[in-house]
Amino acid sequence: MEEKLKLFKQKMSDIVYLNQAGAVLGWDQNTYMPAGGAESRGNQLEVISKISHEWSTSQEMGQLLEDLGEYAKQLEQDSDDARLIKVAKRDFDFDTRIPVEFVGEFAQATTMAFSAWVEARQKSDFSIFLPHLQKVVDLNRRMADFFPEADHPYDVLLDQYEPGMKTAEVKAIFEGLRPQQVELIKKIAGKSEVDDSFLHQAFDEQKQWDFGVDVVTRFGYDWNRGRQDKAPHPFSINFGMDDVRITTRVYPDFLNPMLFGTMHETGHAMYEQGISPTLKGTSIARGASLAVHESQSRMWENLVGRSLPFWKFFYPRLQEVFPQLAPVSLNQFYKGINKVSPSLIRVEADEATYNLHIMLRLELEIAMIEGKVALKDLPEMWNSKFKEYLGITPKNDAEGVLQDVHWSYGNMGYFSTYALGNLVSAQLWEKINLDLPDLDNQISNGKFDSLLGWLRTNIHQHGRKFEPQELIQKITGSKIDPAAYVRYLNKKFGEIYDL
Amino acid sequence: MEEKLKLFKQKMSDIVYLNQAGAVLGWDQNTYMPAGGAESRGNQLEVISKISHEWSTSQEMGQLLEDLGEYAKQLEQDSDDARLIKVAKRDFDFDTRIPVEFVGEFAQATTMAFSAWVEARQKSDFSIFLPHLQKVVDLNRRMADFFPEADHPYDVLLDQYEPGMKTAEVKAIFEGLRPQQVELIKKIAGKSEVDDSFLHQAFDEQKQWDFGVDVVTRFGYDWNRGRQDKAPHPFSINFGMDDVRITTRVYPDFLNPMLFGTMHETGHAMYEQGISPTLKGTSIARGASLAVHESQSRMWENLVGRSLPFWKFFYPRLQEVFPQLAPVSLNQFYKGINKVSPSLIRVEADEATYNLHIMLRLELEIAMIEGKVALKDLPEMWNSKFKEYLGITPKNDAEGVLQDVHWSYGNMGYFSTYALGNLVSAQLWEKINLDLPDLDNQISNGKFDSLLGWLRTNIHQHGRKFEPQELIQKITGSKIDPAAYVRYLNKKFGEIYDL
Repeated sequence: MEEKLKLFKQKMSDIVYLNQAGAVLGWDQNTYMPAGGAESRGNQLEVISKISHEWSTSQEMGQLLEDLGEYAKQLEQDSDDARLIKVAKRDFDFDTRIPVEFVGEFAQATTMAFSAWVEARQKSDFSIFLPHLQKVVDLNRRMADFFPEADHPYDVLLDQYEPGMKTAEVKAIFEGLRPQQVELIKKIAGKSEVDDSFLHQAFDEQKQWDFGVDVVTRFGYDWNRGRQDKAPHPFSINFGMDDVRITTRVYPDFLNPMLFGTMHETGHAMYEQGISPTLKGTSIARGASLAVHESQSRMWENLVGRSLPFWKFFYPRLQEVFPQLAPVSLNQFYKGINKVSPSLIRVEADEATYNLHIMLRLELEIAMIEGKVALKDLPEMWNSKFKEYLGITPKNDAEGVLQDVHWSYGNMGYFSTYALGNLVSAQLWEKINLDLPDLDNQISNGKFDSLLGWLRTNIHQHGRKFEPQELIQKITGSKIDPAAYVRYLNKKFGEIYDL
Repeated sequence: MEEKLKLFKQKMSDIVYLNQAGAVLGWDQNTYMPAGGAESRGNQLEVISKISHEWSTSQEMGQLLEDLGEYAKQLEQDSDDARLIKVAKRDFDFDTRIPVEFVGEFAQATTMAFSAWVEARQKSDFSIFLPHLQKVVDLNRRMADFFPEADHPYDVLLDQYEPGMKTAEVKAIFEGLRPQQVELIKKIAGKSEVDDSFLHQAFDEQKQWDFGVDVVTRFGYDWNRGRQDKAPHPFSINFGMDDVRITTRVYPDFLNPMLFGTMHETGHAMYEQGISPTLKGTSIARGASLAVHESQSRMWENLVGRSLPFWKFFYPRLQEVFPQLAPVSLNQFYKGINKVSPSLIRVEADEATYNLHIMLRLELEIAMIEGKVALKDLPEMWNSKFKEYLGITPKNDAEGVLQDVHWSYGNMGYFSTYALGNLVSAQLWEKINLDLPDLDNQISNGKFDSLLGWLRTNIHQHGRKFEPQELIQKITGSKIDPAAYVRYLNKKFGEIYDL
């Protein structure tokens, strides 16, 4: 059986390294590739994903996993090998349920859906996207049909991003959260507006870049195993734990995108850099789920990067780099970067309103998958829910139902991971502050090593060994729960807005 | 048979796109990859080359080529399909003769040889490299043994880089060339030295970069299908004809590396950009051989870039960018960039001495493969030949026998392509000037479109359809012949040095 385990690991690492190669091509495509290279890049990626899929779903792999399943039962159940076999079996079962023809059809339909979405959004005309969205919904429903044992078809979609997570759980979490967030922003709306005009000034781009680099270097991002480049839509990506890259964008007249974007992507990247080297070359050597990943990026961006202790240390430095901030006090600056203002666009939303954008999408997605909404009515439904949750109404479809790219990619079940990530970040933060009672003080002194060490030990090193709910339970003693996030929001914005 | 051709092309394009993916990883490795990513990058590339080799040498591919061989005979013999089948069969026969175990052994031995070479060169101690060089020679001799029908074992090595080229041919070419080059540099040595001190001044790096970009844009390098980055050892690389990249290096205090390096790599790159789109996705959609490739890079670097007409147009521009060149006349500048001075290091050699560096290496390589030299005597042999050809003697092994990386990679048979490229560039140049009698005048006006058009029509578009000797014969009416290069050198340096 040792031999079979060895053979399995060999075959798995081939797949892992091949997928890493594909990721390098993706990074290049999003940073440096000349426009003319697009078609060939598509061909190159197609070959790689074809081989990867063939290998991942081969009979031989299936047989090895079958044989090793018994063997794994004799191992310590939290050992790397036992978990690796378990997760690999789950991946295999998922991948082999989806027929190759379906994968092809899906890829083709979403390629067209993406082009249609670009045009529809540009013209702010939902009717252009409508037939493609119908196709995407149909495909996602057919996808769910491959797993008839699921409690709810949406579970199947969710499971791709949050292994083991159920629709009913997510709904329950969000239903506990929504009224409290709605109430909070209503209270804030009654207060006078915070001034953040000083964030919209001319800021030298190179100086912004350098400031961001200084921040994430102090965070503990390992430049020997990473680098930063510019990208129009920032992302982080990894080719194994030893090459984990970040990207950022720099606006000449607005500080936030570089500042918080860089911290956000670094949060993702330090997660991947922190995975145990013993897992190298295996399929569990990456983040546990999108929500857990997002908990890391949001923690560094918001709980650290939008906190008062953080700016106690960094604001004098920022003022030195940008003397135009000299007239702005630390407290004014802190309030400015935390200004709450219901906005139409999710990606520009503040901490207090962000989750409401997500809940809206989750409800619509579930309705679509359940077939409970005629898609032509979607823009209307979007707008009325938007008004209900955020108190404002989109002027048109481009800033309403057409704003996100995700559905055109065929992704349904993805959005909720963003909000879950916020919740998890606050839940972990409470536990971290119990374990590291001096943390605020450390952050005020620009020290982040205890925090990063805690994250490495409790989260990063494990990679994908544990399902997200299992992991959060292990660490905090309970599953994902919105209470901590509500406490966090109420305390923070209670102080800022004097509620 | 149409079906088989289609299947063959499908399988071939999968291999081609997979190899292109590997090239993207190579580009990244040499430009942006953080140091920590090296080990994983090795693993990623290993998987890709393993699949590529398996597919290229599969029984199925062999059978298809067998079947198509008959079919190809009915096709017009210079048609794309006929040539593709012929070249693919030759590649297949080569690849399948080399046992997989041998490939593995070779890779392992050269990985160690490279590390040993780095250390040996650093310490200038040949004895550190000696056992590894012995291994490399043994492996190359064993490689030759897989082709017992070859006239000379060195033919087998040469054939990897110059399909169809024979050792006897190369020797004959070089023997006709050497005495004339030796005589030329002796004559030059009797003349007073040319001043090129003005090339060694402070030159703003960004301005250098921009100047190089302007030059190669005027050459006709297609930026929509390419880009330029910095690399410590400049190279050009392509991922298909629609993404052909160049790299350069910029010294803050020396103009030549950026100037001529950029033009050189662009020469390579425009070759690949000029291949006929009808060949896309096939294995013949790349340069015919290393020598033909080098003929393009050397042509743009030397016959164009080190010519008087070129600088008539560009020198005033260069002076505008770098006012410190104001006191230097066009003629002084032209002489300076063409200064002849026998030097110890090949990569720094001028046009008049370069080939002698190559001939030396060719003779030593042939002696090694024939077993006619005890490797421990190699440094001595190097130094005495060096003295004979170039009139100077290396002070130590680092600047003598240890200077090149090639042997540590296991490459033997490679060097001569550099000199052959020089010869071909001059041979083509004579023909081009017959076809485009106004060329000098065009170049003096910064116009390169007729030249590039000629190269596209006669060379670039064909890719690897023709063997190098066949191609040169087709164009110039004779095989590779040193006479044109000798005429070129004598005329150019006769004028510069008033011989």
